Amino acid sequence: MTYENFNVEELTPPSAFTGSKLPIDDVRIEDFEVFGKVILLLFSWQELTLDIDLRFPTSLDASGSDAMNPAGDYSATHVQLKTNTDLKGHGISFTIGRGNDLCTSAARQIAERLVGKTLGELTKNMGATWRFLVADSQLRWVGPEKGVTHLGLSACVNALWDLWGRYLNKPIWKLVCDMTPEEVVACIDFRYILDAITPDEAVTILKEQAKTKPARFEDAQKSEAVPAYSTQAGWLGFSDERMIELINSNLSDGIDKFKLKVGGNLEDDIRRVQIARDTIGYDRTMMLDANQVWSVPEAIEYMKKLVKFKPLFIEEPTSPDDILGHAAIRKALSPYGVGVATGEHCQNRVIFKQLLQAGSIDYCQIDACRLGGVNEVLSVLLMAKRFNVPIVPHSGGIGLNEYTQHLALLNYICISGEKSLLEHINSFSEVLKYPVQTKNGFFITPWEAGYSVEYKPEAIVTYEYPNGSFWQSEQGLAIRDGPKL
Amino acid sequence: MTYENFNVEELTPPSAFTGSKLPIDDVRIEDFEVFGKVILLLFSWQELTLDIDLRFPTSLDASGSDAMNPAGDYSATHVQLKTNTDLKGHGISFTIGRGNDLCTSAARQIAERLVGKTLGELTKNMGATWRFLVADSQLRWVGPEKGVTHLGLSACVNALWDLWGRYLNKPIWKLVCDMTPEEVVACIDFRYILDAITPDEAVTILKEQAKTKPARFEDAQKSEAVPAYSTQAGWLGFSDERMIELINSNLSDGIDKFKLKVGGNLEDDIRRVQIARDTIGYDRTMMLDANQVWSVPEAIEYMKKLVKFKPLFIEEPTSPDDILGHAAIRKALSPYGVGVATGEHCQNRVIFKQLLQAGSIDYCQIDACRLGGVNEVLSVLLMAKRFNVPIVPHSGGIGLNEYTQHLALLNYICISGEKSLLEHINSFSEVLKYPVQTKNGFFITPWEAGYSVEYKPEAIVTYEYPNGSFWQSEQGLAIRDGPKL
Repeated sequence: MTYENFNVEELTPPSAFTGSKLPIDDVRIEDFEVFGKVILLLFSWQELTLDIDLRFPTSLDASGSDAMNPAGDYSATHVQLKTNTDLKGHGISFTIGRGNDLCTSAARQIAERLVGKTLGELTKNMGATWRFLVADSQLRWVGPEKGVTHLGLSACVNALWDLWGRYLNKPIWKLVCDMTPEEVVACIDFRYILDAITPDEAVTILKEQAKTKPARFEDAQKSEAVPAYSTQAGWLGFSDERMIELINSNLSDGIDKFKLKVGGNLEDDIRRVQIARDTIGYDRTMMLDANQVWSVPEAIEYMKKLVKFKPLFIEEPTSPDDILGHAAIRKALSPYGVGVATGEHCQNRVIFKQLLQAGSIDYCQIDACRLGGVNEVLSVLLMAKRFNVPIVPHSGGIGLNEYTQHLALLNYICISGEKSLLEHINSFSEVLKYPVQTKNGFFITPWEAGYSVEYKPEAIVTYEYPNGSFWQSEQGLAIRDGPKL
Repeated sequence: MTYENFNVEELTPPSAFTGSKLPIDDVRIEDFEVFGKVILLLFSWQELTLDIDLRFPTSLDASGSDAMNPAGDYSATHVQLKTNTDLKGHGISFTIGRGNDLCTSAARQIAERLVGKTLGELTKNMGATWRFLVADSQLRWVGPEKGVTHLGLSACVNALWDLWGRYLNKPIWKLVCDMTPEEVVACIDFRYILDAITPDEAVTILKEQAKTKPARFEDAQKSEAVPAYSTQAGWLGFSDERMIELINSNLSDGIDKFKLKVGGNLEDDIRRVQIARDTIGYDRTMMLDANQVWSVPEAIEYMKKLVKFKPLFIEEPTSPDDILGHAAIRKALSPYGVGVATGEHCQNRVIFKQLLQAGSIDYCQIDACRLGGVNEVLSVLLMAKRFNVPIVPHSGGIGLNEYTQHLALLNYICISGEKSLLEHINSFSEVLKYPVQTKNGFFITPWEAGYSVEYKPEAIVTYEYPNGSFWQSEQGLAIRDGPKL
């Protein structure tokens, strides 16, 4: 990849992008650190053997509770790539609780393969770099390209993109938007997707969009590119009163689109959704999310009881692996005007390819960590454009929303050309150095260099478990021995 | 589950099945051990931090080499369930090299959830026990039900079945064959497969087969139930001379069906397959295996160059996740009389369900470890019967063949009613206490209690790395610093 194309004049950002003065081949990855951090704890309190263990007392409420995950310690596998310069690459993969132990081990094995290489050789052909990282046959065997090993991969790949962005002093969304079509396509490994999209077809899509890119970049500058919706009112564990209160506070903040968790109990769901719809009003967008609890026939039967509340879509009605099952559910619900969405647990580009080929989904919910980092996300965004399916990224985790704002922006500006809804979640965003922000129902465009996920030092001092100041306080000591899974 | 149905008179085995005198609720799992064992090492020699590290000097040949795995340390995650009695349950999950580190960690987390429970409560409703093990939301999040966490699960589930078999003093195949249809179905978690098969439909299939079970049991007693085919002549790294020599030695042993690895290089493949076919003769069965190297269009184009050699099927032509891709390849190759097979990397029952629903495969290649143990295998065998697709289990690993002989037997006797080919691999089988054996082209029916995977102590003394007698020998020292991946 050449750098002439990163023409900072072409699209004018608020601040000039100077980038690093160092030749890119003089920036060498010399070491890495992998941390597993528990950064949102609900009901379970088992010890974790991690370098740093950050815990927040959200067991005091029920944020994050859904039909499949009653007790989700929100965690992150955090990779830091260290170089021979003061540049560092920060990457995370979002997980839950003990599962994070496995992902940090995987990330450690994968990060080792980057040590000693220069940023220049790694970014010259990003598609080849990505293929190199997934082709390690000893890790591939226990996947391939899915689950623990793929989550570990994304923490490393996201850290590499973050390092690249910091070197160029550009946010990731702009780094991609400034690439030529050929440069974007060079970031993608097309193995297993050639029957859905070829490199040439991808270049054609990008060239077509390039013509109208500047107008959409202006939307980004005005922070009117990415409309937000909220999930935070609709957690399954919330009381009706709390749900109503949160819907109203979102409305007064200018966010008027909402998603509710369902799938626990039909009568409760009918009551909650009725109350929510009455509060939101039928003229605004409401979505539902079942988190995979149903088999296909159960999903259809259950949802027929909820269609009268006019949800835009039902998210994760069944197993994320079930391409044909989602197609059957979509066929059964489309007469009622209810769409089908999935993706936060879709393991890789091969599953997304088939969801699109089979007409299984109305909305494609890419995840910034479940997929193997930015490279694989780009391949799914291009396939979604090819099949004319809008994306609605998954942001349900600490740090995910900071990633997805970049993906929604670059998708709008250089791939799809159309604005798409983005899930807004900011609980505990104060632990992040650059948390997402919204204004008038839109995300405020991020301009800091890199991929926007970095933690504040003071968060560690307060919440490190068990020595952080919170955990030594009376309140902290009182809830430390909460129920174990 | 009741035990009256284990009527030892009903089907007469060579030796009487006395079983344990202890009430099943007095057998309590009190502890467990998880070992990661490297039991076949090819080209890479990195240190592994495992309890026991067994290594065999097969870097001296190239067994196990294929188009995707040039350097596969054959490994196993080995779980031992210890009880308050002298009964122990042994289970393994087959992996490769460093990937085993991740699977042993997963198995440790899963095995912990069995401690303190009795064999009675765990086997009373095996379907519920299996659901309990996969429903741990903190591990489920990093799957769900696939890859590292599912491989760790199968080592634990297989150990539980082994313990159950030893308690009843029955081999696993007979334990299942002695169950009533309702008892078999009670072992299965039907979540996500109800659109393909219901519990009632499964019972109907089993009842129909029960009528003719005794005749097939007689085949098992005569060791004429499971015909064998060999993969061992066809590893990609073998010379033409060695391939010919191994084909001929198999023929003289009575094994006249063969599978060859392809996908490395078209000209080499054409030469190797031509030589193999000439040696085998066109009147005998030959199969090909590409180990996932191709995209869908590449698979079709490449295979059209090989159809003239009349293979029975092409195995793993593309990604194991690609249900629609396999259907497209099958459609393109069926005019040439070449079938499509896959399964050794199919992550769970949801993928198998769709491969069957979409008509993607001619042969269903279940794996005893990739799927979550015996319970999930039973669900796939029943779906395969429902869709009239024969099974050809994957045995390509040390210990796998010892498992698949049980699965092929129980499938023939009580589920499919038809004999199916079983892959025969016995390299390094001398490390096992009860290795598979063949006679006149059939597997010799195993009668030892349990699931047949247990290692000999003398194997450890000889091959433990780096202190085993082999590794301290001149030859061992000479190859210890072989190439690293």
